Order: sequence, then C-alpha cells, then structure tokens
Amino acid sequence: MLVALAGGVGAARFLDGLTKVVKPEEVYIVGNTGDDTEIYGLHISPDLDTVIYTLAGLANPVHGWGIQNDTFEGLKALGALGQETWFQLGDRDLATHIFRTNCLLKGETLSATTATIARNLGVQSTVMPMSNDRVRTIVRTPAGKLDFQTYFVRRQAKDEVVGIKFQGAAKSRPAPGLLRAIRNAEGIIFCPSNPIISVGPILAVPGIRTAIERRKCPSVAISPIIGGRAVKGPAANMMETLGMEVSALGVAKIYQGLVDVFILDETDKDLAPAIQKLGMQPVFMDTIMRGPAEKKALARKAVQAVRKYRAL
Amino acid sequence: MLVALAGGVGAARFLDGLTKVVKPEEVYIVGNTGDDTEIYGLHISPDLDTVIYTLAGLANPVHGWGIQNDTFEGLKALGALGQETWFQLGDRDLATHIFRTNCLLKGETLSATTATIARNLGVQSTVMPMSNDRVRTIVRTPAGKLDFQTYFVRRQAKDEVVGIKFQGAAKSRPAPGLLRAIRNAEGIIFCPSNPIISVGPILAVPGIRTAIERRKCPSVAISPIIGGRAVKGPAANMMETLGMEVSALGVAKIYQGLVDVFILDETDKDLAPAIQKLGMQPVFMDTIMRGPAEKKALARKAVQAVRKYRAL
Repeated sequence: MLVALAGGVGAARFLDGLTKVVKPEEVYIVGNTGDDTEIYGLHISPDLDTVIYTLAGLANPVHGWGIQNDTFEGLKALGALGQETWFQLGDRDLATHIFRTNCLLKGETLSATTATIARNLGVQSTVMPMSNDRVRTIVRTPAGKLDFQTYFVRRQAKDEVVGIKFQGAAKSRPAPGLLRAIRNAEGIIFCPSNPIISVGPILAVPGIRTAIERRKCPSVAISPIIGGRAVKGPAANMMETLGMEVSALGVAKIYQGLVDVFILDETDKDLAPAIQKLGMQPVFMDTIMRGPAEKKALARKAVQAVRKYRAL
Repeated sequence: MLVALAGGVGAARFLDGLTKVVKPEEVYIVGNTGDDTEIYGLHISPDLDTVIYTLAGLANPVHGWGIQNDTFEGLKALGALGQETWFQLGDRDLATHIFRTNCLLKGETLSATTATIARNLGVQSTVMPMSNDRVRTIVRTPAGKLDFQTYFVRRQAKDEVVGIKFQGAAKSRPAPGLLRAIRNAEGIIFCPSNPIISVGPILAVPGIRTAIERRKCPSVAISPIIGGRAVKGPAANMMETLGMEVSALGVAKIYQGLVDVFILDETDKDLAPAIQKLGMQPVFMDTIMRGPAEKKALARKAVQAVRKYRAL
C-alpha cells in the first residue's frame, strides 16, 4: 500500500496518474479537511471531493475542481432566495454535499461518509479524511482572520498571508486506521500540494507527523514549486509573506525529517546540493502535468523512487 | 383581508385566480404543513411550496407541483450515491429546501422562513404555515402506518386509507398572527382542497377551528368533489374507506359550522336542499379550473359570495 498525503487539484492530478501506474486499490489517500466549510448549512469537503471526482473521472478538466458539465440551476435559485453564491456549487456537486451533510446528521463519521461517496462513484482507492474531528484552516491577513474559503475563493487569495492557524487541530485525532496505514505502508508520497495549507493541516493532526517521522518505508515528495513559482494557487506568495524561501528548497525544508526522496523540476537542478544537505535525495524531471502522459510519468517516477530507495 | 385555507395543487390554482381578482397583498394564505417531510435531511414543505411557486408564476403547469422546466441533475447524482429518488426534487426546488433547512437550523421559524421564500420569489400575498410546530399526517392502511409522502408519492395513494392521524397536532400552536388574521378577516375561504388531509391538519391545530367557528365574517368553501369524484388526488377514495359520503355533500358535512356559503359544481344541483339543511347556502357554477379564465371566474364567485353574504 502506498499512502499519499493530498490537498486539492495538484494532488488529484498526480493521483490520477498514480492510480493508473499502480493498482488503484493499493493507494491510500489521506485528504486535507482543513479547508472544509459549511455553506447553506451543507458540509463541504473541497479537497476530498476534488480527489474523488478526479479519480471517478468526473472532474472538471479546466478548473480541476467541481464536476464536468455540471449545471448551476440550484445555485442560481439560491441566489434568487438572497443567498451569496461566490462558492460555485453545481447541481451534481450539491448532491454530494446534501448526501454528506445528511450522513453526518445521522451520526456517521466523515471517514465512513467519504468512503461511501468514493465507492458509489466508482473510486477504487481509499480516500480518507485526515481526521473525523473538525479542523479549520484560518488565514491571518492585514484584513483580519479569514476562514480558508473566504480567503481562497471569495477573496481570490489576494490578501497577504501573515499567519496560518489550524483551528481544532491540537485536539483532533487521526481518522480510524490512518496511523496503521502509515505504519504498514510500502511508501509514503507527499503529493504536489501546497505544503502549508494542504499538507500542513494533515501534519498538524497529532500523531500523523510522528508516525511519518518513525516510518519504516521510503517517503517521497513532489515539489509544487518550480523555479520559485507555484504551479497553481497561492503557495509561492504565502511562503514569501510567511518569511519562507520561495523555492522547491523552501518546500524541502518544510518536509525535513519526513521525506527521503524529493522530486523536483529539472529547471531547479542547482538546488541539488542544498536538498542533499537536508538529508533528502533529489530526483529531477519535468514535473509539470500537462496531460495524462505527464501525470503518469510523474507518478511512475515517484513509485520508482520508493522502490529504489527501499532497495538501498 | 381574505384568509384562505389551502392544501396543494387545487388550492394553488384557485389562489392563482384569487390573487388576480383581488389585490394579492389582501390575501392571507394558511398552508397545510401536515405533509411536510424530511428527505436527505432537508425540510420539505410541499403544500407551501406549491402555493408559493404557483403565485410566483414558477409552477410546473402539468403537475401543478415543482418548478417549471426544472432540471434533475442533483437528484440523479443522489441516485448515483445510492439514495432513493422517488420524491422528485428538481435542482431549483432543492435550492428552496436547502435554504429552508438552513434557516430552520439557524433557529428561524418556519413562518419567517416561508415569508422570506415567498417575498424573494416575488409573491405579494402572505403565505403562512398553519403552525411552526411539527405536525405530521400519518395514514393508517392495511399495509401499516405510513407517513403522508410515503402513502401519497411513493405508493401513489394506492393503499386503502382506514385512518388518519395528525401527529403532533394536539400540542401544536397556530403560527404567530394566524388567529388574529382569522379574527380580523373580511372573509374566510376554504380552497378546493382535500378536506381530510389538506384542510384537516389546519383545523386540527388547536385554536384554528374555534376561531373559525366564532368568525364575524362570511366563510365560503369550494367543493373539491364533483359528481362524487375528486377533481384531483385521493379525496374520493379516502372519504369512501373512511366511511364518509363521497360527494360534495360529504365535504359540506365535514365543514358544518365552519362555512356559510358552499360553492359546488352545477352538476351537483340536486344537493341543494341537503346543503341548505346543513345551514349553508349553496352556490352552483362550473367549478373545474381548466385554465386562467376558469380560475378567475371561480375566485370571483367566492369573493362575490363573501360580499353578498356580508350584505345579508
């Protein structure tokens, strides 16, 4: 079993490749729920859904999130009822949130509900929220504290990020079976996700970081930063305003002690000695996932890295 | 102000006419919530919605319920998630239920929520649930006790009805302002709705029946039964299996003491003496609402009946 730590779109694209180069049922995905939110009273898990929709072949290939060819009749009607509609929820997507909210209302766990959604949509990999407890990423900005989706979607990640807090993380517990999956894993993969707000919340759940530090298998990370810029999203700006080094090396520093092999773009070859100094083995390749071929190539490289490192 | 007691489709059609022959803001509609239900954890008020959608000009003219040209993408997706989909909820209709459920979750009353929905959809009449308390119509059948929508929609009203119960009615209170509206009304109108399961729950809310009995204004009812048959729905079968007389006279008997003028179809002219014996003045006309003209004609007749009876 490969355990993959995943955020949203970048991770989903990588996992789409990974589940095509290994058996999908051998991939155990740990999803970020720090950016979960409640809209219209519905529980929304954007990162889990992005991963599930992508692996189910339903994802919108343009945005990466949402469902392809989804309609927005419900959202328009909610607008007519005076509701804010900045969070784009399509009709089929809303169905997922209605279902999830109802399951939670009936006392089911988020992990059980997520498993049901994934299974019903035909996903063969395990998709596991990092925790069944409520953890919420709060972004501190000059405009005040913002919940993650307000910062990210409503205000389009334009605020300067001066601090990040994972509310509830200290008291949260890893989802059932998650630590065992890490202990028994053949390999751990940090997907090309934002290390601060996508992987950060996962590592903030007590027990997960320690389990990875004590791993008995190789751990591989793929840098989401190429040539000092984020492939997608606000990672680079955020790293800068938080006083981090905006580069793949900056990402590697965040993962020090957790990762054995660091896959980064060949344009970042000059970072090799610095990566090695952190105790990681750098692996270079073209890491931009333009299409299915590149997704699979990157996934294959990650799997090879796990196998090679194990053979050392 | 005219106070109208209303069920679903038949009432909505009549009210569509009524709000065109008097000022819509002078119509105060008391809606049945005995057939409210929870589906996917969403609070659904079918009769209130049918009235609101109709007065907003959004109703599906074929079924009478739901929204015209609504799409069913969310419902299909809920089906794919393993949910039952026998209750046909369109995407725009779902938006209403999401909104209502969220308002109730935040502690708002059903009456306030209903008013917001009606206002936002452009309805100028007052649409008031009979009660903010939970009342549920339970139908006793040879197959056991069924909640109303299971009996009506899922099992298509095919079960023999041997009893009716309005669960929660005894402890329910009329919605705020409702009794005052009845006391101050210029006229009370019993819409052409099922007297047992549409108007019945309204009259079962303690205080409402008494307020109508003590009315200081004329009260007019329109028979939903013509020539011994229901214009729509299971009223006739239900009256039969409950041991009532299946005719407009049977309806009049249910309303004895509550109604001064009884409008019935001209095909039922032979019932005149019996209606008069119940203390009601019969008024005959073509009561089938085939289209806008007939809706308005029926409404005009009801309004005239109020005025004439007042002038007596």
